[in-house]
Amino acid sequence: MTRDQARALDAADPLARYRDAFALPEGVIYLDGNSLGVLPRAVTPALADTVQRQWGERLIRSWNEGWIDAPQRLGGLIAPLIGAQPHEVIVGDTTSTHLFKAIVAALRHDPKRRTVVSEAGNFPTDLHIAEGAVGCVPGAQLKVVARDQLADALDDDTALLLLTHVHYKTADRFDLADWTARAHAAGALMLWDFSHSVGAVPLDVAAANVDLAVGCTYKYLNGGPGAPAFLYVAERLQAALANPVSGWMGHADPFAFQDTYRPAEGMRRWLVGTPSILAMASLEAALGLWADIDQQAVAAKSAALFDILHAAGTAAGLECVSPTDPAKRGSHISFRAPHAYELTQALIARGVIGDFRAPDVLRLGLTPLYLSHEDAWQAGETIRQVIADESWRDPAYAIRNAVT
Amino acid sequence: MTRDQARALDAADPLARYRDAFALPEGVIYLDGNSLGVLPRAVTPALADTVQRQWGERLIRSWNEGWIDAPQRLGGLIAPLIGAQPHEVIVGDTTSTHLFKAIVAALRHDPKRRTVVSEAGNFPTDLHIAEGAVGCVPGAQLKVVARDQLADALDDDTALLLLTHVHYKTADRFDLADWTARAHAAGALMLWDFSHSVGAVPLDVAAANVDLAVGCTYKYLNGGPGAPAFLYVAERLQAALANPVSGWMGHADPFAFQDTYRPAEGMRRWLVGTPSILAMASLEAALGLWADIDQQAVAAKSAALFDILHAAGTAAGLECVSPTDPAKRGSHISFRAPHAYELTQALIARGVIGDFRAPDVLRLGLTPLYLSHEDAWQAGETIRQVIADESWRDPAYAIRNAVT
Repeated sequence: MTRDQARALDAADPLARYRDAFALPEGVIYLDGNSLGVLPRAVTPALADTVQRQWGERLIRSWNEGWIDAPQRLGGLIAPLIGAQPHEVIVGDTTSTHLFKAIVAALRHDPKRRTVVSEAGNFPTDLHIAEGAVGCVPGAQLKVVARDQLADALDDDTALLLLTHVHYKTADRFDLADWTARAHAAGALMLWDFSHSVGAVPLDVAAANVDLAVGCTYKYLNGGPGAPAFLYVAERLQAALANPVSGWMGHADPFAFQDTYRPAEGMRRWLVGTPSILAMASLEAALGLWADIDQQAVAAKSAALFDILHAAGTAAGLECVSPTDPAKRGSHISFRAPHAYELTQALIARGVIGDFRAPDVLRLGLTPLYLSHEDAWQAGETIRQVIADESWRDPAYAIRNAVT
Repeated sequence: MTRDQARALDAADPLARYRDAFALPEGVIYLDGNSLGVLPRAVTPALADTVQRQWGERLIRSWNEGWIDAPQRLGGLIAPLIGAQPHEVIVGDTTSTHLFKAIVAALRHDPKRRTVVSEAGNFPTDLHIAEGAVGCVPGAQLKVVARDQLADALDDDTALLLLTHVHYKTADRFDLADWTARAHAAGALMLWDFSHSVGAVPLDVAAANVDLAVGCTYKYLNGGPGAPAFLYVAERLQAALANPVSGWMGHADPFAFQDTYRPAEGMRRWLVGTPSILAMASLEAALGLWADIDQQAVAAKSAALFDILHAAGTAAGLECVSPTDPAKRGSHISFRAPHAYELTQALIARGVIGDFRAPDVLRLGLTPLYLSHEDAWQAGETIRQVIADESWRDPAYAIRNAVT
């Protein structure tokens, strides 16, 4: 592909108009939107209003003027992105805390089943939290097996199958309906982590009959660093499942100030404490962009961006570890390389920001709302140049960079 | 007291200069800083930098440029306000989530002890969370007793005494050292909720030998609506207590992406997921104000403000339910009145913002950093006028206002 061919794709791109909705930094091609999405321009005025008028002027009165309903309102904005009904999603807390609540609740749902099954190499917090959650339910255990052993691990002791839909490292994607059906066939509940899926690939929890899901909003949804996470509970399970972290925001009548906990109806019972309203305001502004976006167009553009970087990376001798079938992956591309860390740093030094995932993966996020085909082409060119240059193997790059 | 006398107190007030550090709304006397503190002017530029430069321009790189250490850094700013060492406090999550983690951890500390003791009428989330937490530890139970039964409730089955230091409704304050010593004498750990104490009354966890404490930062610390909460764990207990909500941010090496949880040393093990950086930035700016503030001066001014409102309220026939001894209360004053809700609404309509706490309490917060003696005098005058007027009993005020 040439630069002109990439530009031609941009000229025909139905999503190209969204690029102006983001404050993209100068001189950077940002391929890390799968870790931290970029700043939507709508966030700045929304935060200014929240801080200056709602907090500064209206003060406590703002709780009655929109704040108290923010968890449900934002849940309603996320619902269509995962195929849920608005009253099946709530926003607040972190993905980790939602996982904890959902896992304990699922284990208590059928006391005859004591095992949570998950995948080795799943995103660490999913496994760490599951480890903590089984410790809160007598007799419960966590069984972590390799992906190809998952089907065999499901049995009549399985209370819950916990999977991350798109793998954070490889971008491997599970079939949503197929694995949900396998969990159900074993008599277990299914909990999906959509952190690397929502805003990246089309999702339909209703069609797949999903029981529970959580997800991160600071990646493809661009809610801001550490933005609050979401929890989905299928309507049919809402009355049966209880939140073990029974805080006052989930009480049926929080402002009656009663000693005894009584869970709210519907999704509000999953709230714990008071969510950060500044964080919610930023996320709400970011979610506003998604109202008229065609998820299929996002998926199609993600596939085109993938193909450009796949061609460039493999031509430069890198081993792609992401599936080449777009139906089997999320929206990033990962290359394995013996000096992946130094390569990541060399690319960042040249303005192409991806990230490194231990021990040997260069990961590049594909975010169709603000990345152009020309960006992908330019990133591919930079990869080619860096690898041809060889100077990136300089030990100066080897200072460990903890987060990127 | 006359207006001129109040002004004379303001002229001699060593804290008067802090008022300009806050963006106070026009035409309002704000007596609800014990529920939501006002906006510090420093928040606006701090958030602008966090959003525009750190998120917008530096993007993922900001995790290595200050974000990742924010929970410990902000803990270090709160530590001197409670008499702790900087490495004994961490910020993130909500007060409710911190309570959950601390209660489960305390119950696991000595498996022979199975009871959490707390006070009837404690702030609801403390009791609700304790109810959920005991459900996560086999055999554990919650014993909730009236304040005058607390001493008798402590026995050799008590694992933890959980008390809110300053009562959210009455402002009654427990003696920190005395009740901590009682818990210890019974062989139990002591967990304090400082939500209505921090920034309001002098605290010294080291002198009182406190084991555990949590607290809210959006009240007297002015961190913003739903600002992240803090957790204190005494250094001597840090290695012995484990976080049941074992998320990746509390892992010894989060970016090694290991399947098995291994808790970090020190306070970092109490982190769960990724905290909202926007919420942390607002709180950090707000905490900057406290560096050179004399807590004894805050307490002295709080007492003066209390006396002004106490005189006005009792003269108007209201029954004060807060202790008149300043050593036995926090920094608000509560009046019981049969029509407390309508009275609260009538005062708000006249620009004096306090709040109502069911079933019959008018609560007025005293925040010495931004309230003047003249404000308190004017609020007292307004109370006098409203009660003399009698129109506040109009049923139009009786529309239930859930939050204020």
